[in-house]
Amino acid sequence: MTVTRPGPTTRARIHQISGNVARDRRDDLATEEPLEIRLSDGETRRTVAITMRTPGHDFELAAGFLHAEGLADGIATIAYCTDDDVPPEARYNTVTVRLRGPIPDLPSLDRHFLTSSACGVCGSASLDALHDRCSPVRSTFTVEPATLYALPDRLRAAQGVFGKTGGLHAAGLFTAEGDLVIAREDVGRHNAVDKLVGWSSMQGLLPLTDHVLMVSGRTSYEIMQKALAAGLSMVCAVSAPSSLAVDLAREFGMTLVGFLRDERCNVYAGEERIVTAR
Amino acid sequence: MTVTRPGPTTRARIHQISGNVARDRRDDLATEEPLEIRLSDGETRRTVAITMRTPGHDFELAAGFLHAEGLADGIATIAYCTDDDVPPEARYNTVTVRLRGPIPDLPSLDRHFLTSSACGVCGSASLDALHDRCSPVRSTFTVEPATLYALPDRLRAAQGVFGKTGGLHAAGLFTAEGDLVIAREDVGRHNAVDKLVGWSSMQGLLPLTDHVLMVSGRTSYEIMQKALAAGLSMVCAVSAPSSLAVDLAREFGMTLVGFLRDERCNVYAGEERIVTAR
Repeated sequence: MTVTRPGPTTRARIHQISGNVARDRRDDLATEEPLEIRLSDGETRRTVAITMRTPGHDFELAAGFLHAEGLADGIATIAYCTDDDVPPEARYNTVTVRLRGPIPDLPSLDRHFLTSSACGVCGSASLDALHDRCSPVRSTFTVEPATLYALPDRLRAAQGVFGKTGGLHAAGLFTAEGDLVIAREDVGRHNAVDKLVGWSSMQGLLPLTDHVLMVSGRTSYEIMQKALAAGLSMVCAVSAPSSLAVDLAREFGMTLVGFLRDERCNVYAGEERIVTAR
Repeated sequence: MTVTRPGPTTRARIHQISGNVARDRRDDLATEEPLEIRLSDGETRRTVAITMRTPGHDFELAAGFLHAEGLADGIATIAYCTDDDVPPEARYNTVTVRLRGPIPDLPSLDRHFLTSSACGVCGSASLDALHDRCSPVRSTFTVEPATLYALPDRLRAAQGVFGKTGGLHAAGLFTAEGDLVIAREDVGRHNAVDKLVGWSSMQGLLPLTDHVLMVSGRTSYEIMQKALAAGLSMVCAVSAPSSLAVDLAREFGMTLVGFLRDERCNVYAGEERIVTAR
């Protein structure tokens, strides 16, 4: 098996919509893949972090992460992991830091998502693991581009004065007609989505099959995973998605829209839910 | 003791610099405080997450977080925690979710920072705990506003073509004269800083006492904590800081600059390192 080392960007075919007209084009996405950081003292080893990152400078990432945890002085070597339990496709996503002394008693940090350690960490393994908990979305509603173009202003209008200055991430839940249901803000973008889904859960609105989620920033694996778990079939963002956000959307039949601003947007997955002239 | 429930925004005195002139003013910051989520089955309890969040809608945040982990159906009640081990000042930062059944075997998630559970979770306890690992910065260098105004363009110039589209967070390390030392990019903003600090560590450059860190987005507790651990005394950002980022900067003698764009900036802490006419 040939092992391809993941690069910092990933090519993808997307649909670019301007006004009411869609065009196919190629685009570059920021690659998002998990990195597992293991500590070793030569005899035992322990996973201290699994973090979603853009591949490249992985040893620096591990060293810097450990420095912030007060561990940098004890690093002997850093290498990609060749342990037998790491399959080839996860090899460039697993880093072993050999310490000069014993492994300290650190809590596991940044474990942002669950994956079986038996299958190693890589984006496709993360998606496989998600199938155990989530089914592909089933939703046949469609929207006009004009409906999408109205969402950013409506989300901003729902934000507090402070949020409008850019100090807070926002997440808005909309109907398929573009009407705002609820908006939530937080310093953490995942928290804004959690608050919105938690509210929906308390209101008995889940699954949110025929709704649209709009977020003020970028879309990552974690945002899409939370949207999928809530049954959402359409996620829109002001900014760019990561490669793994797009992979997740395609794998589970979701529509993913990015760069939604100024009567334009990019559609990365599920374009059949957006009615355009072409 | 009176317990004040933290609000979504926090008032602060800041210095607003335009050109070479500084003015005092009041500003609102997005509040950042830890939230600990505990699960309980009536007999035992277990912490499953400590996440930095903006106070408000905390029960929704807990419900949404657990929904994404596949646990929402089992929630009986959600309440602020009144356990004896939670001191009054941490009470509104600790939520207990009572489950209908037994506590499942979930790994701890989102444990972004270390704090003694004995002292409860709150921003000031987080800063107290940090004193065990980090000393206040000692650095007497100063910069002109014009030096700071040049940083955003230099950071953008160092980013790859893709990063300039907004798809990646960037972190740049600069000398006190404003010269770029190194820049790193990532889908995760903490990772970009980790890569930069890890590189510095490998080069033997730590501590980065007389350097300036510039980040493309906002500044949070975690970004400041990583900068402090690397010995940085000045952090600049294109966007806003959180309340706890400002508290950390003031507590440890760091300079924190935000909204650095268009020949203007806000200085939230350590203004003595910036030479202005006033």
